[in-house]
Amino acid sequence: MNSHLFFHPLRGIVALFVGLALGLPATAAPAATGASVEQWGVFELTLAGPASGNPFTEVELTARFTQGAHTVPVTGFYDGDGVYKIRFMPDATGEWHYETASNQAELGGKSGSFTVTPPAKDNHGPVRVARTFHFDYADGTPYRELGTTCYAWTQRPDADEELTLKTLAASPFNKIRMCVFPTGRGPRSMRYPPFEGPMPRGWDKTRFNPVFFRHLEQRVGQLRDIGVEADLIVFHPYETYWGFNSMDAASDDRYVRYLVARLAAYRNVWWSLSNEYDFNRAKKESDWDRLFQVVQAADPYGHLRSIHNGTMIYNQTHPWVTHASIQNGAAVLDSERALLYRDVYRKPIVFDEVKYEGNNAARWGQLKPEELVLRFWEGTIAGTYVGHSETYRGAIGAWLSVGGELKGESVARLAFLKKILADSPPEGIDPIDKWQDRHTGGKAGEYYLVYLGEQAPTAWPFVLYKTALADGLKFNVDVIDTWAMTITPVEGPFEIKKRDNYVFADKDGRSVSLPGKPYQAIRIRRIGPPAANPIPETQTEP
Amino acid sequence: MNSHLFFHPLRGIVALFVGLALGLPATAAPAATGASVEQWGVFELTLAGPASGNPFTEVELTARFTQGAHTVPVTGFYDGDGVYKIRFMPDATGEWHYETASNQAELGGKSGSFTVTPPAKDNHGPVRVARTFHFDYADGTPYRELGTTCYAWTQRPDADEELTLKTLAASPFNKIRMCVFPTGRGPRSMRYPPFEGPMPRGWDKTRFNPVFFRHLEQRVGQLRDIGVEADLIVFHPYETYWGFNSMDAASDDRYVRYLVARLAAYRNVWWSLSNEYDFNRAKKESDWDRLFQVVQAADPYGHLRSIHNGTMIYNQTHPWVTHASIQNGAAVLDSERALLYRDVYRKPIVFDEVKYEGNNAARWGQLKPEELVLRFWEGTIAGTYVGHSETYRGAIGAWLSVGGELKGESVARLAFLKKILADSPPEGIDPIDKWQDRHTGGKAGEYYLVYLGEQAPTAWPFVLYKTALADGLKFNVDVIDTWAMTITPVEGPFEIKKRDNYVFADKDGRSVSLPGKPYQAIRIRRIGPPAANPIPETQTEP
Repeated sequence: MNSHLFFHPLRGIVALFVGLALGLPATAAPAATGASVEQWGVFELTLAGPASGNPFTEVELTARFTQGAHTVPVTGFYDGDGVYKIRFMPDATGEWHYETASNQAELGGKSGSFTVTPPAKDNHGPVRVARTFHFDYADGTPYRELGTTCYAWTQRPDADEELTLKTLAASPFNKIRMCVFPTGRGPRSMRYPPFEGPMPRGWDKTRFNPVFFRHLEQRVGQLRDIGVEADLIVFHPYETYWGFNSMDAASDDRYVRYLVARLAAYRNVWWSLSNEYDFNRAKKESDWDRLFQVVQAADPYGHLRSIHNGTMIYNQTHPWVTHASIQNGAAVLDSERALLYRDVYRKPIVFDEVKYEGNNAARWGQLKPEELVLRFWEGTIAGTYVGHSETYRGAIGAWLSVGGELKGESVARLAFLKKILADSPPEGIDPIDKWQDRHTGGKAGEYYLVYLGEQAPTAWPFVLYKTALADGLKFNVDVIDTWAMTITPVEGPFEIKKRDNYVFADKDGRSVSLPGKPYQAIRIRRIGPPAANPIPETQTEP
Repeated sequence: MNSHLFFHPLRGIVALFVGLALGLPATAAPAATGASVEQWGVFELTLAGPASGNPFTEVELTARFTQGAHTVPVTGFYDGDGVYKIRFMPDATGEWHYETASNQAELGGKSGSFTVTPPAKDNHGPVRVARTFHFDYADGTPYRELGTTCYAWTQRPDADEELTLKTLAASPFNKIRMCVFPTGRGPRSMRYPPFEGPMPRGWDKTRFNPVFFRHLEQRVGQLRDIGVEADLIVFHPYETYWGFNSMDAASDDRYVRYLVARLAAYRNVWWSLSNEYDFNRAKKESDWDRLFQVVQAADPYGHLRSIHNGTMIYNQTHPWVTHASIQNGAAVLDSERALLYRDVYRKPIVFDEVKYEGNNAARWGQLKPEELVLRFWEGTIAGTYVGHSETYRGAIGAWLSVGGELKGESVARLAFLKKILADSPPEGIDPIDKWQDRHTGGKAGEYYLVYLGEQAPTAWPFVLYKTALADGLKFNVDVIDTWAMTITPVEGPFEIKKRDNYVFADKDGRSVSLPGKPYQAIRIRRIGPPAANPIPETQTEP
């Protein structure tokens, strides 16, 4: 039998080489034995095939991975030098079987089996939409999105890229938005060219450079291993020199399919079709509709799909959009603005760009850290998710552009927010009294976060909207200074009594004392007795 | 020839009776001569046909109205007592021809011609969407939507209904939202039953009561004659006694088609599929999708179509929605919230319910007049439209429910706003610096309204966002007290000079003095020289 099993610890891939070792030609389908991979890990099948002609366009290679009645069709890809690969992310433990098909005799008809073991401790699977507005990992663990952006961090020398990974590993962020294609112009802004041929205009858009993609995969795998989702920005409008943003539709589609074939088996991949899609003058909105559908059809695992806007928001109601990725610096100044997007899209709202902390001359890049932290809190109590980046120039450039080190003061406060949310109901934070109370999010009857932003009152009357409340419920209260990062328990508990048709208040009319400073929040947690059933509000006009 | 021409001055309809006068049976198609109707008026053809069986369900009657290559297919309706009618709203002057078709020999094959004369002075045709976010009449006259709501005003004694019409005629409102079906319960809340048979549960939903619809048409025609659009609420969830909100799908569709056949020829008709559609527990969202499409297919003129929400907003991106009719009391507290809906829907945004002025116990009906007027101004500078009503109880009940008299203090301020807008650019008001400046709407380079809401500064620095500006442009300024209804010219003019990459300011750094009171606006109008070309802002991150 002519097959060999390897494990790449650095890449986290279990690789099965078939008919390839020692330069032997591929033979009839071998039955692999002994291979095993963890659930939601990457199983990689490597096959030898033709190197002549244009394998990227001429060779078709697919495989069917089956477990009982469950079949996952997967597309392979050409990795150069006569090497073909098929990557698969199994979503269940136990024995799996595969069988390849191809328009090349030497690639088709290969079959074998392998074993999928339970996921390792920190492997919770890919992230999915949950409860309309939130995210969970596939194993049900809540995923509280807390993202940052470094557009071109994978275009740097190794030392820079490793610094970025080290910074990320020590940060609170669990997602990074990053461009696949280089930004900027000129060879120095590009680590490897994505296509073959003399760059830029002589590139053959039908021939990919596997080195470019292997490097990207290495970094995506390293992000996975530090618990960071890779929100891959498939296109961006930030250059005209290389021409990545103005390829013809056939080249766009071929590139998207190749990218998906290579990377979809990485559980931490998300697809962001474009950054500021509307600033790409070479594409119409219908092109983005099509590209979304190309990704959707090509990705066997249904990874999250979004698109990021400049000034014109994409129609996020389309079924191929899994969550709304929004740029709007003003919407999260106020939870009541932020939640309007929830109402209209009925999907998770991720404010991936709310302006950035820093000292850039442009008004999108000069937020004070307090201003960015405020946006996170307002977005949080609105039941939405907010994204970070910063524009301060570090040793290798700005974090927003190239990664490196974080210099801003918001990061520590976001880590503090993350810690608070880790201790909140797993269902996520939702607005409590939509369109009426802009300060309160939580889970009705159980958990409330009241965020007062720039207001600096010295007391907060203990009053809660009626949903899921009843006389006699008791609550513990903490005052949270979101900037100083302190949590101060308030003497309690507070016991509630119905006050009118809308609210319950502390039975003795007590208020929560506050320090008279901005950026305060109040955390209210029920300690007993069990919550009442929700009381639905029915409007009865006219 | 057996045809007779009548003009109903009260109803504004030119009616042609064919084969019907003197009880004669219908004969072969007569050629009508001498009939004429104004453009966008109602041409009505009356035919005699079978009264036996169930004419509502068994008789098919259509006509084709043609002028040259232009053909409009129209559906007729049964009006009781063997009388059938076909109504047509011509959209062009000159000679028109019609020919009927039917599954009844006596109704089909009638043909004739008539002349369409130019529209009368105050007839501008139906209202259409214009410039994405705004409305024009069909003749190009801007329509600045300023609506009110009286749900059940057509269910009252004549004296009450005439009082409502008189009040409306003296008001600033140019649209009224009104229910077709009665609200409430019991015979006293219903003027005429809409169906035949013992009410309510013995009703035959396949047999309409023409008296009910004739009465509705009379009132719609009277609204037209005082320049008020009738935003007909086709369904509402405000009763379970009569059962209008829980008919089966076939009855719903039949009712909608009958309503459209009778009323579509009235140029001032809009279709609001439902009030608070999501509070109707008997219908799914897909039912509303279907009903929208029934209306769209049945209406030869494409009248405006919308649906009004309770707490869950309908997917207003559907192509059958012409404009977003939104209930949200909080969105127009702040123009920056209001305009988020423009971004996501790219259609006119009409905040048909923003809570109401009055003294109702419910929090949706107890706005102070100042609060309602503020919502109109915030909505206006956001480039959206806002709706009025009030809950004070007058002699016959609350305006919101039954019409009658207006008692609120907001109405005069809305008339004042209307006067100001009548003197603003015909293109409409749009936000000037979206997501950055929540106080300014207008037409860049030409006209600005800066609304300061509850802020009460004593000065406003003369600074404008760069779009369409250039050094040397001069502007006249007025300070508008939106509550006191005064317009105070400021000594000027102000001449601008570029200040930085974003804004132009008065060349001498001057500010506009303000009285230090809330509810102030600043009107800024260019007086010369001609405006510069727009300077598009291109974001250039990362």
